[in-house]
Amino acid sequence: MSATALDEVAHGLQAFREGLVAHGLVLPTSVRGVWGRGTAMEDIIQRFDALVLRETAGDGAQPLAFPPVLPRTLIEQLGYLDNFPQLAGSVHSFMGNDAQGRELARLADSGGDWEALLAPTDVMLTPAACYPVYPSFSGLLPQGGRLITVLGWVFRHEPSDEPTRLQSFRMREFIRMGSPDTVVAWRDGWLQRGLDLLRRLGLPARSDVAADPFFGRSGRMMAAQQVEQRLKFEILVPVISEAQPTAVCSFNWHQDHFSGKFGIRGAGGATAHTACLGFGLERVALALIRTHGFEPAAWPDDVRALLWP
Amino acid sequence: MSATALDEVAHGLQAFREGLVAHGLVLPTSVRGVWGRGTAMEDIIQRFDALVLRETAGDGAQPLAFPPVLPRTLIEQLGYLDNFPQLAGSVHSFMGNDAQGRELARLADSGGDWEALLAPTDVMLTPAACYPVYPSFSGLLPQGGRLITVLGWVFRHEPSDEPTRLQSFRMREFIRMGSPDTVVAWRDGWLQRGLDLLRRLGLPARSDVAADPFFGRSGRMMAAQQVEQRLKFEILVPVISEAQPTAVCSFNWHQDHFSGKFGIRGAGGATAHTACLGFGLERVALALIRTHGFEPAAWPDDVRALLWP
Repeated sequence: MSATALDEVAHGLQAFREGLVAHGLVLPTSVRGVWGRGTAMEDIIQRFDALVLRETAGDGAQPLAFPPVLPRTLIEQLGYLDNFPQLAGSVHSFMGNDAQGRELARLADSGGDWEALLAPTDVMLTPAACYPVYPSFSGLLPQGGRLITVLGWVFRHEPSDEPTRLQSFRMREFIRMGSPDTVVAWRDGWLQRGLDLLRRLGLPARSDVAADPFFGRSGRMMAAQQVEQRLKFEILVPVISEAQPTAVCSFNWHQDHFSGKFGIRGAGGATAHTACLGFGLERVALALIRTHGFEPAAWPDDVRALLWP
Repeated sequence: MSATALDEVAHGLQAFREGLVAHGLVLPTSVRGVWGRGTAMEDIIQRFDALVLRETAGDGAQPLAFPPVLPRTLIEQLGYLDNFPQLAGSVHSFMGNDAQGRELARLADSGGDWEALLAPTDVMLTPAACYPVYPSFSGLLPQGGRLITVLGWVFRHEPSDEPTRLQSFRMREFIRMGSPDTVVAWRDGWLQRGLDLLRRLGLPARSDVAADPFFGRSGRMMAAQQVEQRLKFEILVPVISEAQPTAVCSFNWHQDHFSGKFGIRGAGGATAHTACLGFGLERVALALIRTHGFEPAAWPDDVRALLWP
């Protein structure tokens, strides 16, 4: 981008952020990428999620829920620390005695390094809403496979002032497990379905092949392979910049990455494939606000009719 | 308790846990106090929360939402590390370069201490759903004060096999800010209202004065003071044991603890008081299951009519 184009983005970004706060949609905290959702923002998020569930009611997805933390061993087992060490959140706690507790409080009260007295717990923050699903389905799948849906909070350590880049946000995910053909056909069908749904909401959505933010030099090769094999797609909508639209929905075909590790097998006994898609709920809300304005009451009638039926 | 009574509790606990898993209500993980919510369990939780919102629709509570992490400085500022260091969850991440990233992956893959390469981030896990609310309302309250409601995931580091003692769970909270009289009258009214609501669901609920699990020897004095001043109440329902019922709802009158720190003042300018109440959603669901059985379809008609209207 030229310096002028960058200036325009920065200016638009600042105006958008200020508008979100001024309209009570975002309640800022002292930490970048961590903010409260105001009443209207949370309503948009809930309404969009309800719309997705209504539109997919006939699919027969089985709803489950998992907390925002998961076993540390699961993160280790999935190779997340090879691929995305920069994004992971590890939970540490104090497990000491009375005297050590007083020392910790003294350090905390005096601005000292009280965290040195902590130790890693058995849990980490959940980086993707579907991760805890896979180990729950070790073994044989029923005929036709499985379709699961979860709504979960996920964590990514990437502090930013960009309102769409949150450290903690919600994903509505659908997870398909079955034969390779079944899973790919499901993913392909959803690409169009996701586009249609977002376009009916008036969003200028388009899809593209994508790559995960793999870490470091070797990560660049991983990302290139992922693009070449067309394993990840995203649906993009301009929020901060027309030139660099924001991913509001992503589709991942894991092949046998998860099913191999957890022994998820098709009815015939062969290792199954898995794929998932996830709507980033805060990002969809921000895309709607960017497109239709800060006042949901003034959004186009057809958009309102879909969200507030 | 006598040894026989303890045996009975242990036996009942095991049978209850096994029943929850056998009925698909609980999806266990490798970590104690961290489990997935099966379809029927999640439905009970959602239905109870919807019931609470329906019953309180006339109160005019303003809904907000906050992520499961909050600023580290907020935990420090609130004195949480003086009182509950043993429960806090601190989020640590990797912020190193490419070479350090490879070292971290090597350590993780070989079972080494990869956590030594992490550093504390700006966030911690939210220990109570109301904590992020207070700093958002620094300044003058409107006439009559404020009533806020939030649904949030909270973390307590207390690994346990006891199904009601979770490391990560949801609280539906209501937060009242206003003059001391207003706040105490609201808290007192809710004590009866909460009991009534839970009893209409067939739960043998009773209320009692309570204390928070303050840490260490000096914590015992804090707890005694809290009881003496009647600052905390709980609504209790037998889940694991008749003799030691489980708190499913708690009421805290903070006096000026939060409002003083964040400069929350009444319309007249004096420091306001705050109080909150929170339903532990997973605990209410477990109390319903313990009372009415593992199959919600077979629960009493009047209970079903309230939850599935």
